[in-house]
Amino acid sequence: MRDILPDEVELRDVTAETILAVYRRYGFRRVETPALENIQLLTRGEGGENEKLIFKVLKRGEKLDLGAATSEADLVDLGLRFDLTVPLARYYANNHARLPRPLKAVQIGPVWRAERQQRGRYRQFTQCDIDILGMTSYVAEVELILATTEALTALGLRNLTVRLNDRRILVGMASRCGFDPSRYNSVFVALDKLDRHDQAAVIKEMEEAGHPTAAISKLVGLLSSFDPVTAPHRGLNEMRQQLGEDASVEAFDALAMISRMVSEEAGDSWRIRFDPTLVRGMSYYTGPIFEIGSAEFPSSIAGGGRYDELIGKILGQDVPATGFSIGFERVVSILTERAGTRRPGERRIAMIFEEGTDDLKRVLQAARQLRGEGIAVSLEIRGKRLSAQLAMLESHGFDGVVVFDGADRPAVRWFEDQPRRADREARS
Amino acid sequence: MRDILPDEVELRDVTAETILAVYRRYGFRRVETPALENIQLLTRGEGGENEKLIFKVLKRGEKLDLGAATSEADLVDLGLRFDLTVPLARYYANNHARLPRPLKAVQIGPVWRAERQQRGRYRQFTQCDIDILGMTSYVAEVELILATTEALTALGLRNLTVRLNDRRILVGMASRCGFDPSRYNSVFVALDKLDRHDQAAVIKEMEEAGHPTAAISKLVGLLSSFDPVTAPHRGLNEMRQQLGEDASVEAFDALAMISRMVSEEAGDSWRIRFDPTLVRGMSYYTGPIFEIGSAEFPSSIAGGGRYDELIGKILGQDVPATGFSIGFERVVSILTERAGTRRPGERRIAMIFEEGTDDLKRVLQAARQLRGEGIAVSLEIRGKRLSAQLAMLESHGFDGVVVFDGADRPAVRWFEDQPRRADREARS
Repeated sequence: MRDILPDEVELRDVTAETILAVYRRYGFRRVETPALENIQLLTRGEGGENEKLIFKVLKRGEKLDLGAATSEADLVDLGLRFDLTVPLARYYANNHARLPRPLKAVQIGPVWRAERQQRGRYRQFTQCDIDILGMTSYVAEVELILATTEALTALGLRNLTVRLNDRRILVGMASRCGFDPSRYNSVFVALDKLDRHDQAAVIKEMEEAGHPTAAISKLVGLLSSFDPVTAPHRGLNEMRQQLGEDASVEAFDALAMISRMVSEEAGDSWRIRFDPTLVRGMSYYTGPIFEIGSAEFPSSIAGGGRYDELIGKILGQDVPATGFSIGFERVVSILTERAGTRRPGERRIAMIFEEGTDDLKRVLQAARQLRGEGIAVSLEIRGKRLSAQLAMLESHGFDGVVVFDGADRPAVRWFEDQPRRADREARS
Repeated sequence: MRDILPDEVELRDVTAETILAVYRRYGFRRVETPALENIQLLTRGEGGENEKLIFKVLKRGEKLDLGAATSEADLVDLGLRFDLTVPLARYYANNHARLPRPLKAVQIGPVWRAERQQRGRYRQFTQCDIDILGMTSYVAEVELILATTEALTALGLRNLTVRLNDRRILVGMASRCGFDPSRYNSVFVALDKLDRHDQAAVIKEMEEAGHPTAAISKLVGLLSSFDPVTAPHRGLNEMRQQLGEDASVEAFDALAMISRMVSEEAGDSWRIRFDPTLVRGMSYYTGPIFEIGSAEFPSSIAGGGRYDELIGKILGQDVPATGFSIGFERVVSILTERAGTRRPGERRIAMIFEEGTDDLKRVLQAARQLRGEGIAVSLEIRGKRLSAQLAMLESHGFDGVVVFDGADRPAVRWFEDQPRRADREARS
């Protein structure tokens, strides 16, 4: 966990506002769930490995009986959410009667995971998810992908690739190759590593896990005949033929429709590909899965998929659902490395005056005047060394200063007009 | 803790954006601290009664030794913040070298208190604070009050009264009346109740607390001679005379300057008053204190004051500080009871099409067209009963619908043109 300084908060706020404005145009509305959920909800298995990383909250008052407690479970009743999907499923189960159907929800907020501390990973971080609940049609996936690529494009990200697959195609592949149906998940876990490790390491992992050598060879053959840069409809047709009767008709039809519709709308800044090695970690996915990456960054910047059974486990009645999550911290770190993003159109100045000398009433009036023109004005008392004060203000991102001189509308001295700023920009 | 439905999230977002836009114009910048702080920071005494209400987080991994634990303190290492002031003091102590001085900070975010559950109070709620750290001058108070009244006015709140007092004047009053200096705090706690209880009950509380009858009578006399609607400079002069040598020259001069400057800028929507019965609960206040209320609402909607010693307790070096906190939940509940606040200028429609019949490619193009015009468009699949679907959409706040008919730019049917909407508005 960490403190966030003003410049980074501004970048994060502008990033969030940009994403939310696009999602609103696609009809998504913000919902909010509390940070704390009942520990039972958080530990029922849908969270996978994340469930080991929950910050658990001690019971309070009479409920806490330290003497009688024999295990951790006796001591805690609440936990901090580790993602936004499990709480959303609970939210929909509790509130569906008061919500539109389908519900198009966007969430942005902190989640917590007690990970070992390492560079660039924090134990509190922000997630930004959109979900469509209550829609069976794969038009939901089309909208999720169009909205998310448009949001990332609005942030200035380019050369994006949407990779598309389907859990049912993964199952078809595993079946076709002859893996043990009770052990498909272990195959998928290994397959998922193909984009980060070489093929030999992945084969070795499957061998060590005890999968049949013949099945492994068949899977390798299936994938090696597959060209990852081929157009999605060709890749899908090829895989569909290879899987024969193990091909899920619904899955292939869905991906064909999704990739066709999305390609029609795609601009120059991104493209869509069918990728049979895409797995996505969470076990709750049931249909199409997708991820957005870019050659410019090592790992994916958004991911999601269809999870038609998760809400049913809480509500007792299945509700079709699909979602897409932007890796907000990843996006912020990419944008930080570029030019610092400032709030568009906002100018921020300091108005310096001498306390006890200048007429405070006139200072306040001058500040009001500038604020009325849309300029952010911070009143600052003149320090002993004005030049040092100006340098401090410039280093903290002020765009200019007014040294109060009694005028009703004193002239702003913009820092960008100063040779110093020009020098600095020339050097960078 | 509770779920927040889309309409309320929209109202909350618009409220927060309105407040933040005003604060930015006054030169405040957002800072963020994590939700979890070390339990030692949260339990050092500055939080008063709130420290009893902390959600405490269980230690993890090897640090948790259930067998050896003899008290709660052995089990926990972190807690959820109960306010934004104590974390800000810690933030400034940790980061001051990288922050401008003075720091003008605005924070908005959730805090948690394990209060007994009651109507209208939640265990997670939002606070919105501005603070100026590193400024000795009472110009800081002037700016806090001007910015906060402007923010509340921008939200449409009217008839606001800023009540102003100073901790040093309270001390002067207690000294003048002859209370025991070691028990001033108990006097202030009773005095604080004067605006919610009648005078007899407050006198009784002081008597039962064992304060001298003569001192109580003198205090009652001091206050009864005081007219709460008098102009601030007259009230201040009167009290200053009555306190004689117990009057803090600095405090009276400060309040005179603050109230004069603020009055100059005050519009018709609010006024400022000196109120010697204003106490503010937190013991960390050291100078001017203030609160904003309105005859229209039973309790205050913002409060704050100067706390010049709090940061020093953490940093080991005093830093002057003053802050103002808007009761965000109170403001939201006032705005909810008025007309529902929608995001200004945003229109939201549903585009209804028939899956499998309409050409999805053309539907998407028509949606893109409308989105390009700034209209939020939610794609919806036509249900079995169109009239029921339209009623559902209208009840969930859609402004209109497009029933897709193959046109490139199908006509929007705005609900407000419907007789139904007119009927409903006529009834309300």
